[in-house]
Amino acid sequence: MEKNALLAERNRGFFRAKKLLVLNVVSSPGSGKTTFIRESAARLAKTLRVGVIVGDLATDNDAAKLRSAGIPVVQITTGTVCHLDADMVSKAARQLDLDQLDVLVIENVGNLVCPADYDLGEDLRVVLLSTTEGEDKPLKYPPMFHSANVAVVTKSDLAAAAGFDREQALANLRRVSHHAEVFELSARTGEGMQPWLDYLKKQRTDANHARA
Amino acid sequence: MEKNALLAERNRGFFRAKKLLVLNVVSSPGSGKTTFIRESAARLAKTLRVGVIVGDLATDNDAAKLRSAGIPVVQITTGTVCHLDADMVSKAARQLDLDQLDVLVIENVGNLVCPADYDLGEDLRVVLLSTTEGEDKPLKYPPMFHSANVAVVTKSDLAAAAGFDREQALANLRRVSHHAEVFELSARTGEGMQPWLDYLKKQRTDANHARA
Repeated sequence: MEKNALLAERNRGFFRAKKLLVLNVVSSPGSGKTTFIRESAARLAKTLRVGVIVGDLATDNDAAKLRSAGIPVVQITTGTVCHLDADMVSKAARQLDLDQLDVLVIENVGNLVCPADYDLGEDLRVVLLSTTEGEDKPLKYPPMFHSANVAVVTKSDLAAAAGFDREQALANLRRVSHHAEVFELSARTGEGMQPWLDYLKKQRTDANHARA
Repeated sequence: MEKNALLAERNRGFFRAKKLLVLNVVSSPGSGKTTFIRESAARLAKTLRVGVIVGDLATDNDAAKLRSAGIPVVQITTGTVCHLDADMVSKAARQLDLDQLDVLVIENVGNLVCPADYDLGEDLRVVLLSTTEGEDKPLKYPPMFHSANVAVVTKSDLAAAAGFDREQALANLRRVSHHAEVFELSARTGEGMQPWLDYLKKQRTDANHARA
């Protein structure tokens, strides 16, 4: 763990030198990480170039989905490991042409517990909470939600069918994800995507000004 | 891990002596474990008495939901640990009056990775896959789905809204969960619950005949 913290800082320095904004996207399995990343990258394509590192225990389904949308992507297959670590990310990043990218998105293994403890060297930790999972998840998985810089409520198009209690969910997020910027959207329909994309563009501009 | 395997066998022997059918229910966060268990217990109440051990990192929300339905329940709070183990279950079980129960359901921490490696001494490992998570989860979390005796597709009432590809999901389950009995249901609407309950009753009868 201590070794991971050091390697994560090395990643952070490396990514800063490359002027990359780096996101670590975490959530339960099936919260919609891949669709969210694919739609974000597609809508940013005219202004920012996005590359992706995808982590999964098995299969390269997610990488294939992203690749078929024209996004540069590297797959990490973890076997039985429930999270990515800084060393895996460092090795995977070498397989991307980072000088051709503005934003690097790391799609972590679907898991609301293990990835919380592993800094990857990201600028922003983005946690997804889908409306179909229920509003209590921030309370039940506090380390992950507490450590997030951004919390995104996904699948807003399914909220009514799922009986999602939006007010309760937002109250739970405010309670656990104190520091997080909150967005609500549906990557499938596009509803609510624009404020998230505007935020991302501003984050990259601000980061590079701060580093200049 | 070796110690856990031994303690799990001790649990198994203890539970057999008590003539309990023991289920270890695992899934992603938000797949509907608590609603599934509550509705199963309520519908079995006339024929089988069900008690529950609930595992969560934090909160006793799930225990409170089950308790308010009149179900005997013990909460295990794991802190940052992503799974239950045999020792936690053994200690929690002592807080239930097992002689007054026929079925003991262990609701594991919401996680498709870590609980796969921890035998708790159960008779049946039951993995839930909700229609809103997508049909690829068995392929992406093979250890968990491979080790399951029962696979339950939950939230069938949301399948159409979520664009769930049922044929693909069942094909993926057949591929990874070779040995699993498969059920499709909605605990919220009650659709599909009866075949699952009939199966459970038969499992308990068969187990106690085999042990007699």
